[in-house]
Amino acid sequence: MARISVGLAQVNQVVGDFQGNSRKIIRYIRMAKSRGADVVLFPELSVSGYPPEDLLLRSDFLEENERALSRIVKATEDILAVVGFVRRNEHIYNSAAIIYNKKIHACYDKIFLPNYGVFDEYRYFGTGRHPLVFTFAGVTFGMTVCEDIWYPDGPHVVEAASGAEIIVNISASPYHFGKWGQRENMISTRASDTKSFFAYCNMTGGQDELVFDGASLFVNESGEVVGRLPLFEETLGVHTIDTESVFRERLHDPRVREEERRVRRAGELPVPVRIPGKRKAGKGGRKLKAGLSDPPPLEGEIFGALVAGTRDYVKKNGFEKVVIGLSGGIDSSFVACVAAEALGRENVIGVSMPSIISSQESIDDAKELARRLGIKLHMVPIGDMYESFLKSLEPLFSGRKQDVTEENLQARIRGMILMSLSNKFGYMVLTTGNKSEMSVGYATLYGDMAGGFAVIKDVYKTMLYRLSRYYNEVRKKVVIPERVLTKAPSAELRPDQLDTDTLPPYEVLDPILMSYIEDDCAIEEIVARGFPPSTVKKVVAMVDSNEYKRRQAPPGVRISQRGLGKDRRMPITNRFFGKS
Amino acid sequence: MARISVGLAQVNQVVGDFQGNSRKIIRYIRMAKSRGADVVLFPELSVSGYPPEDLLLRSDFLEENERALSRIVKATEDILAVVGFVRRNEHIYNSAAIIYNKKIHACYDKIFLPNYGVFDEYRYFGTGRHPLVFTFAGVTFGMTVCEDIWYPDGPHVVEAASGAEIIVNISASPYHFGKWGQRENMISTRASDTKSFFAYCNMTGGQDELVFDGASLFVNESGEVVGRLPLFEETLGVHTIDTESVFRERLHDPRVREEERRVRRAGELPVPVRIPGKRKAGKGGRKLKAGLSDPPPLEGEIFGALVAGTRDYVKKNGFEKVVIGLSGGIDSSFVACVAAEALGRENVIGVSMPSIISSQESIDDAKELARRLGIKLHMVPIGDMYESFLKSLEPLFSGRKQDVTEENLQARIRGMILMSLSNKFGYMVLTTGNKSEMSVGYATLYGDMAGGFAVIKDVYKTMLYRLSRYYNEVRKKVVIPERVLTKAPSAELRPDQLDTDTLPPYEVLDPILMSYIEDDCAIEEIVARGFPPSTVKKVVAMVDSNEYKRRQAPPGVRISQRGLGKDRRMPITNRFFGKS
Repeated sequence: MARISVGLAQVNQVVGDFQGNSRKIIRYIRMAKSRGADVVLFPELSVSGYPPEDLLLRSDFLEENERALSRIVKATEDILAVVGFVRRNEHIYNSAAIIYNKKIHACYDKIFLPNYGVFDEYRYFGTGRHPLVFTFAGVTFGMTVCEDIWYPDGPHVVEAASGAEIIVNISASPYHFGKWGQRENMISTRASDTKSFFAYCNMTGGQDELVFDGASLFVNESGEVVGRLPLFEETLGVHTIDTESVFRERLHDPRVREEERRVRRAGELPVPVRIPGKRKAGKGGRKLKAGLSDPPPLEGEIFGALVAGTRDYVKKNGFEKVVIGLSGGIDSSFVACVAAEALGRENVIGVSMPSIISSQESIDDAKELARRLGIKLHMVPIGDMYESFLKSLEPLFSGRKQDVTEENLQARIRGMILMSLSNKFGYMVLTTGNKSEMSVGYATLYGDMAGGFAVIKDVYKTMLYRLSRYYNEVRKKVVIPERVLTKAPSAELRPDQLDTDTLPPYEVLDPILMSYIEDDCAIEEIVARGFPPSTVKKVVAMVDSNEYKRRQAPPGVRISQRGLGKDRRMPITNRFFGKS
Repeated sequence: MARISVGLAQVNQVVGDFQGNSRKIIRYIRMAKSRGADVVLFPELSVSGYPPEDLLLRSDFLEENERALSRIVKATEDILAVVGFVRRNEHIYNSAAIIYNKKIHACYDKIFLPNYGVFDEYRYFGTGRHPLVFTFAGVTFGMTVCEDIWYPDGPHVVEAASGAEIIVNISASPYHFGKWGQRENMISTRASDTKSFFAYCNMTGGQDELVFDGASLFVNESGEVVGRLPLFEETLGVHTIDTESVFRERLHDPRVREEERRVRRAGELPVPVRIPGKRKAGKGGRKLKAGLSDPPPLEGEIFGALVAGTRDYVKKNGFEKVVIGLSGGIDSSFVACVAAEALGRENVIGVSMPSIISSQESIDDAKELARRLGIKLHMVPIGDMYESFLKSLEPLFSGRKQDVTEENLQARIRGMILMSLSNKFGYMVLTTGNKSEMSVGYATLYGDMAGGFAVIKDVYKTMLYRLSRYYNEVRKKVVIPERVLTKAPSAELRPDQLDTDTLPPYEVLDPILMSYIEDDCAIEEIVARGFPPSTVKKVVAMVDSNEYKRRQAPPGVRISQRGLGKDRRMPITNRFFGKS
């Protein structure tokens, strides 16, 4: 019987912050030791932050990364730490260092490199060639990094066949809604396939458009989740693993033995690296439990992602306060709530910028939202500025009738006011466009699209209603006024305007958009899902022709499997209109 | 002796335009036939346009691509055509179809997939496995696609060893300055290494930020360039190749024979596909020459790229006219010249938007430039609008002194005026920021950065002076007034402002930026190149902290090996400040 206590340090790192990242890792190493851990795991590339993108092409970046690792190595005593860093050899590798008593005993280079969706790892990394098995304190571990275990024949198979009882995985696995569940199922299958205990440590926090959900796991050899860390929270979970049950399970299941024979024939069995060391877990007999954090419902999950992503983008970029144009509509109301949760209500400034077209209800709703949320609200009517533009442009526009130009003017004046407050007071402007609008381009470039961060750019309008009601529920009071949730959406840029003048109702628009964007369906496939051909064609044409707007949009939290950022790389110049 | 005439159809395709692309290919097939060609080559992915990016993830896109290819196949008679398309099998491949007499006789899948710089081919394509050799009309050809021949041990080696006399390469090789020369040297080396004739067909024209230079080549077995098509021009070049000299060269050079033995031992010699057919070249004895187009000097090369890139972006996106804010400075003056060359002067509208800070010289220079270039110029003074903003913001700004806020307000009012003209009249706004400014963020987001296309975003200021003088020279008159080229650069957003108030002189700034951006140097390495540490640190910090602005910038022509687009993928959230 061998008992060992493993800690998962689900940390929130900042790309390029080698001082801060290494200090935090050292702090967590000490914390894990004091909590009785024999081993502590840190996420993929936790030294550099993830993804470092083209910083990886700079040799000074690589050097600092190695210096930061050296500091961590010096601080690692009486506990084994697994730390993700960039290993520089003939190429660079996405690696894990196995550190014990101030020494790196082995390094493992990631073998399966993702190069799809938001990932570009072939752009940078050499491919690891060798599975890694190491023994420590009487227990045998197999090493993997993120993508490695998403392949059924990943290195964990060979490692288990070579005797690994605990498969370690360090990840920087970005969130999209529902992903933690898929991941858990997958890891559960891998654990039960290989009859190994899985210790899975994922990064948490936001980095530009990505947010990492954490939700790190301990999964036993039967595939049961025995420990789960919370979503979107920096934390440490320590769990005592009894490897005796791995041995017993393998007695009854022939698959690992079979695999060992197969692998041995192919001459691929790695020789375990022996790391002399002792464990604490066996001695005192203390059995630690990481706990089983319950994931929230879908709305809570998404809300948590938006809050974490917004907080980290604002703070990691050195801002403290944000400013939001409050129209009295659901989009800006909800964004203000997310911002207040992320940064504290004292750090959220609302601005109401009515025109003569704005209804009194809208103005009142904005005020009411600000009051209920407890944030400051400025009033800047835009009438005079608008008139001044019309007058100056009159000689050029002579005789032309009003059109979208005048609507955009109003939106752009509002954008300029917010940017002026940003420039004068150092606030970051949060934009309030949702995914439905951003997809079809129902937004004004340099107008309501102007700002530093687009909180809900990956949230469809219909989901926004669900999230808003969820928020009122969990806050146990009506923060977002009921009228905001029930009135017909309007941009209020011309009299009596409604979104439905230009767009199909959101209950129709959103599923069409999901079919087109998330599922990459052809027009006739979307029609076959039960939508009118003319509507589908119109929506698809709007999406395609507004790529240029999205390209100039600020980043925002990615919550879906297909956001409008680097996981959807569409040309602007594009004459493809579906089947001819 | 076997003589064969090969045509290079250096076409300008549009991504996703299957109707237009296939019609053009069929037209060029007929043209090549009438010009006496036995074989005609089209660029890589000439059916779909390059790069199709994530359109490749849509199955309707792949289907239309195959349908377009079928149309081309049906139209191919009495001439062999090599056409780049997306082949769909168990995966998708970046392929070449070998078509003759209404039939596809073979397909070749690209083996070396680029996934660096602006390329993401691992994101989409399966890796080709087999070199392809085919015989036609008594001549043996080896097939390669783009990147394949950039590797010294690419498929051309095995193909030559298997008897290929002519190596065909179809490419979509994006321009950066100086690249055509490197490419020519490389192909010359490959030809002389393998003692093969190389027929290299490159795409031409612009696609979003990329511009393809064409400069297609015929290179003989001694490595001599015997035919060169012009840069940035859609054209067909036909050349008669006498393969007798390939045979004779190989008699004297043992390397191909040696390679054949090596490859045969490894069992990798491909079996030639036999395509029955006859050639015209041998009969009439007509010997065609593609000609040797002389490349222009560096300035002409870059100017050509800017013109081609701007013309194609504007036209392929359905615009005809452009509008440019003319400040009287060199940036906007030069952009107006590029636009006039690209679109015709009748399609370029200038707007002068003076403030009380604008000098009379600047206003006069803008007028003079417009007059000499022969473009329309509107005047829209911004004073009233500016005052109106100041008045509306006063209650919020009370007591605060003027700062960059007020400067940005002016720039943003100008941006709004241009965008209003765009909205009202359907012009595309061309922005005028150069690479020096875009790098350090010396530009106003939603102000002078507002627009559809950033013509010179990859041109450093010092190069801009060279290009402007070059333009005046080749036009054989002073289009850009001398004062524009000699006065001290100023944004004129506050009284007596000069660029050098904020930035080092451009002769210092530009080489620092090149060291940092193009060469990825560390701060101390730039200092070692002879620049003051404080200046270098300041410049680097400006570059890093303005990534958020560049992310919201419009696309522009990429002319360097490291543009500010998808070949430089930097995180916005980034705390790396070099060595600590």
